[in-house]
Amino acid sequence: MAAVFGGVEGGGTHSKAVLVSENGKILAETDGPSTNHWLVGVDKCIEAINDMVQKAKIEAGLDPDTPLHSLGMSLSGGEQKDAIDKIIQEMKKRFPKLSINYYITTDAIGAMATASDRGGIVLISGTGSNCKLVNPDGSQVGCGGWGHMMGDEGSAFWISHLAVKTVFDAKDNLAKPPYDVAHVKKVIEDYFQVRGQLKVQQEIKSSTDYTDIVSPLISLCLPLPLSPSLSLSLSVSLHQPLLTGEQCLPILCVGSVWKSWDLLKPGFTKVLAELESTPAFKGRFYGYNLLTLRQSSGSALGGAVLGAKSAGATVTLNYADNTQVFYEHFFQSSQ
Amino acid sequence: MAAVFGGVEGGGTHSKAVLVSENGKILAETDGPSTNHWLVGVDKCIEAINDMVQKAKIEAGLDPDTPLHSLGMSLSGGEQKDAIDKIIQEMKKRFPKLSINYYITTDAIGAMATASDRGGIVLISGTGSNCKLVNPDGSQVGCGGWGHMMGDEGSAFWISHLAVKTVFDAKDNLAKPPYDVAHVKKVIEDYFQVRGQLKVQQEIKSSTDYTDIVSPLISLCLPLPLSPSLSLSLSVSLHQPLLTGEQCLPILCVGSVWKSWDLLKPGFTKVLAELESTPAFKGRFYGYNLLTLRQSSGSALGGAVLGAKSAGATVTLNYADNTQVFYEHFFQSSQ
Repeated sequence: MAAVFGGVEGGGTHSKAVLVSENGKILAETDGPSTNHWLVGVDKCIEAINDMVQKAKIEAGLDPDTPLHSLGMSLSGGEQKDAIDKIIQEMKKRFPKLSINYYITTDAIGAMATASDRGGIVLISGTGSNCKLVNPDGSQVGCGGWGHMMGDEGSAFWISHLAVKTVFDAKDNLAKPPYDVAHVKKVIEDYFQVRGQLKVQQEIKSSTDYTDIVSPLISLCLPLPLSPSLSLSLSVSLHQPLLTGEQCLPILCVGSVWKSWDLLKPGFTKVLAELESTPAFKGRFYGYNLLTLRQSSGSALGGAVLGAKSAGATVTLNYADNTQVFYEHFFQSSQ
Repeated sequence: MAAVFGGVEGGGTHSKAVLVSENGKILAETDGPSTNHWLVGVDKCIEAINDMVQKAKIEAGLDPDTPLHSLGMSLSGGEQKDAIDKIIQEMKKRFPKLSINYYITTDAIGAMATASDRGGIVLISGTGSNCKLVNPDGSQVGCGGWGHMMGDEGSAFWISHLAVKTVFDAKDNLAKPPYDVAHVKKVIEDYFQVRGQLKVQQEIKSSTDYTDIVSPLISLCLPLPLSPSLSLSLSVSLHQPLLTGEQCLPILCVGSVWKSWDLLKPGFTKVLAELESTPAFKGRFYGYNLLTLRQSSGSALGGAVLGAKSAGATVTLNYADNTQVFYEHFFQSSQ
């Protein structure tokens, strides 16, 4: 039997597994429940992964008792070395027939590996957020992704919270808002079906699940606060080859906040234009593309690629099939 | 029997009641459990208040079946008209012998009324925070006090959170810290007994009670973030008589954060000095005093005064006995 490579995308609500051959052909895809080990614990996490992958083997007509060559998993929270080592150790012990080699990376890096083998930037903006830069030499830099208390700038939660806070601070005369807040104030009050600052605060206090207030608020027209974070990280860490390729700088966009691109666009493009005009970037920053993953298997496919690589094998993908560009911008001064 | 006036200070962990005569003589003081109606519910809140006040009547040698002339309560969250009306309505119904008249105000305004009848600023900085300005004509302006999610700037929680966030943002290259963060980083890591950003984030995520991380961090040397809030509110709302009195501007300081005054002083005094140099204040802002309440009955006494006033009576306090100045500053240019 030719070597088979597995990939997993672990999510907070549902997960995916994919099996591929070395030429990138998808042999099977399966779904499963949450595999966020912070939420469900390590035991349930690895059981769910085993179930999905074994189901995929059967779906692909493979012997479930024959281990995969490698299993690469893109998990949120897949940065913590202690946790990763524990998960892999447990999988090897409990499911010896699952795979020979194991590899764990983050959802961000897994998605990037589905989109390209030449690096780029990945911006995850869902309920939470993350920002990773992968240079062509493989070096990585991150910014944010610290959870809703410490720093998910660019997440739906953060945008909504910032919207409410901006209205509060304007009312208190604590900070001058950058734009007129009348519309945002009205949207917030309409959402909570109350009037006035005290009442809004009471609604927020009494909401046990703070993410409850997130989704309706992401339609507010506010500049995306992750843009400055992106620009600052870029300016110190972005390697030249990423800036001057024919494809411009690829920025892979993941998560539901990107559905509101029309609203994010003015703030996002403005900050990148400002960045391009700084001495460090002037004449070097040719332009950028915003991409989404077309591939339904998402970061599972990238996980399979990285898992194979870590086990000394190669899975080749046709990257053009996996992404689509939804916005591109060329800087005139750099042309 | 001469009219007797009651006052209550409602707190999140414990409460106090006081009975006074019209000349301010304290007839009895009692303690009780939490009377924060957000935490314990309206029923337990009003039962605890009734218990404390009835106990105080007995302690003062009064007939518990004779209602007080008035009962003034300083409660945190005592700004929400709906909640206030509900509490008073319930008290009248369930405890008809408790008091003839009722009045509810906030902990901030109650504390101010213990300290002075000429107005001033009260800054509450405990686990939470609040900032109220009372002008000599009785007009009030507030800033902050919106809870740890929406705006308790100046609270122990906010200071600690800002400390951790500042270190995170510096590490991510997201925002340049205003000062060197090496010491703060060490204090945070020592507190959590871990090393590195990921580990600190994990500790914060796994802490079910976020206030757990507060107390040790308030000893960090950071400029007090409530200072700018104070200055902005002042500049639009402060009436002339408060600025030019012999006593300078009285600022009543309540809460445990003020125990770290040595650490807060550089940032706090700097911001007020900057304010004094603005056109709106130049030559008008004579100086300021920072005061604490000496009176053990705290905002309960002020509650009694305001309760009496709302019922058409007057309780006279010797304010000089109730406060002590722990810092005073005169601006040279205004002398």
